[in-house]
Amino acid sequence: MLSKISAKSLARRSFSSATKAPKRVVVTGGAGQISYSLLFRIASGQFLGADQPVILNVLDLDFMKDPLSGVQMELHDCAFDTLAEVNATTNQTEAFKDADYIFLVGAKPRGPGMERADLLMDNGKIFVDTGKAINDNASRDAKTIVVGNPANTNALICAHHAKDIPKENFTAMTRLDHNRALTQLALQTDSAVTDIENMVIWGNHSPTMYPDIRGTTVAGKAALDLVDRTWYEDSYIPKVQQRGAEIIQARKLSSAASAGNAALDHMRDWVFGSSEVLSMAVPSEGNPYGVPEGLVFSFPCKVTPGKYEIIPGYDNSDAFSQEKIKATTDELLQERDMVSGLLN
Amino acid sequence: MLSKISAKSLARRSFSSATKAPKRVVVTGGAGQISYSLLFRIASGQFLGADQPVILNVLDLDFMKDPLSGVQMELHDCAFDTLAEVNATTNQTEAFKDADYIFLVGAKPRGPGMERADLLMDNGKIFVDTGKAINDNASRDAKTIVVGNPANTNALICAHHAKDIPKENFTAMTRLDHNRALTQLALQTDSAVTDIENMVIWGNHSPTMYPDIRGTTVAGKAALDLVDRTWYEDSYIPKVQQRGAEIIQARKLSSAASAGNAALDHMRDWVFGSSEVLSMAVPSEGNPYGVPEGLVFSFPCKVTPGKYEIIPGYDNSDAFSQEKIKATTDELLQERDMVSGLLN
Repeated sequence: MLSKISAKSLARRSFSSATKAPKRVVVTGGAGQISYSLLFRIASGQFLGADQPVILNVLDLDFMKDPLSGVQMELHDCAFDTLAEVNATTNQTEAFKDADYIFLVGAKPRGPGMERADLLMDNGKIFVDTGKAINDNASRDAKTIVVGNPANTNALICAHHAKDIPKENFTAMTRLDHNRALTQLALQTDSAVTDIENMVIWGNHSPTMYPDIRGTTVAGKAALDLVDRTWYEDSYIPKVQQRGAEIIQARKLSSAASAGNAALDHMRDWVFGSSEVLSMAVPSEGNPYGVPEGLVFSFPCKVTPGKYEIIPGYDNSDAFSQEKIKATTDELLQERDMVSGLLN
Repeated sequence: MLSKISAKSLARRSFSSATKAPKRVVVTGGAGQISYSLLFRIASGQFLGADQPVILNVLDLDFMKDPLSGVQMELHDCAFDTLAEVNATTNQTEAFKDADYIFLVGAKPRGPGMERADLLMDNGKIFVDTGKAINDNASRDAKTIVVGNPANTNALICAHHAKDIPKENFTAMTRLDHNRALTQLALQTDSAVTDIENMVIWGNHSPTMYPDIRGTTVAGKAALDLVDRTWYEDSYIPKVQQRGAEIIQARKLSSAASAGNAALDHMRDWVFGSSEVLSMAVPSEGNPYGVPEGLVFSFPCKVTPGKYEIIPGYDNSDAFSQEKIKATTDELLQERDMVSGLLN
């Protein structure tokens, strides 16, 4: 706990006449690169709006407490109107207390020689504790996005251990993949991202995800009439699936700012709604697509303020889609098997 | 030049009926940490607004072209509505062509054993070329902020070599110091940053700057009646002056996000105006404070859309202020002497 530097009120009288009660927003992995891109955008009003004061609780592990305090200092140094308070802490109970919105950004990265099973288990254990801490401390209708990988399975574990909070409040991020898919299609068709509608990412936030443009339109025209099928299957899908690796190759650092941006998009649209079809990884209830119940799976979602619904009616019976959806479903089942010991 | 990856239109039809012509915004040092915090906020509409398409020209040196292309990819991957185009380039002519707003973030950092005079000269040479490139390519009323240190003297050199563009269009950033000064006073008085009015930073963006709270009010009360004079002189002023070093100590990295935020604040307020007294480092014309003509010096400024004015009437005749202002003026004169060979 970084008590010496926490909890001073910075802007509590900013909204004097029409004061809204501040919302409490938690960001974990607070000293990491994604959070460094995300926190300042939340604090500046881009998440909840220019008239909504926020209290930011920024959590990281004990060995990160110095850089974490540096992040708090820099948030102070922005003099944001909308930032009522910023608490830097290494204590989960303090971080999640009365939380309204939770960005679970922190996760253990894959080290050299580390097996995927080890990665899943090591992260799984973190998310067991996180789920319990959320359950014991957060608002009963706290909304959570998991950004830290393996995001879908981390969300599944977290939801499982937050027994008093509705499962549907735990989601994982495929909006980054969705945004990447929009832009690659815009570039290929020399069009604008805002011309594109009905993009869907199915499945896991991993290279098995299925970017599906069968129903996508570009300025009202069917996307598959505008691009070559070979390009779609052999260039576009792998490009979107492996975009993260391409960024690392160029930057020698992972894609932090675009990930932070996608997390913000996901949560903002969940809070305020959107007219777009969006991709969100959410707990499956089995219907309408037959994805095994409980898996956190990316579906096309319609979002109204505070609520998402999986959009029914996509016909996934063609062989190509079946194969793609099976691959990503199988991967998620395998991940769940690997962490089954954490799901009691 | 990174021609292969530049110049695809991403959102050009986004604003179909009431289309505003896109504004061209240049950010130098595009692959560096400050730009990485700044670019995504500009692209998301936080600089020029949600209804103003922007074309981002992101410049860096040739050896940075891979990470620079990674930044471009990530800007693509955000699918921003307001981002009409993003060009990553290592060519100054291409970068500054028709530029409306210019953030000069890139500068050579001080290396181990490097003398201050060497730092000034090495950066000065960069800003000679930059000034010429702006002069030869940018819009005649392009507005420029220099963020890269030594910012004030870099701005002076740049303005000198952009002979066909009004000198007052070249400014340097002391808004970061201003924001730091606001927050430290808010923390000490347990008040809100938005309660504080009439904060002033005088002089150089360096440890000689003078954070002046003689006229500052906190919720309408004189700041100097709320705090101890000893605290003000011995704790507050050094803390604001040396905040950058404190951040580096904690983060092991320099203050990138808060610097990017302050650059955005400075430029946004310059474009749209502000009701606040703001600190901006601008070319002195000698009046009203007797600062030698031409020095780029931080003054209290009133900003209306597109135009700043130095606010007259501060009485700097007390011994404390005289000494502080003399110290920062002398430093700037010394800096100008060191680069005099670049000012022909």
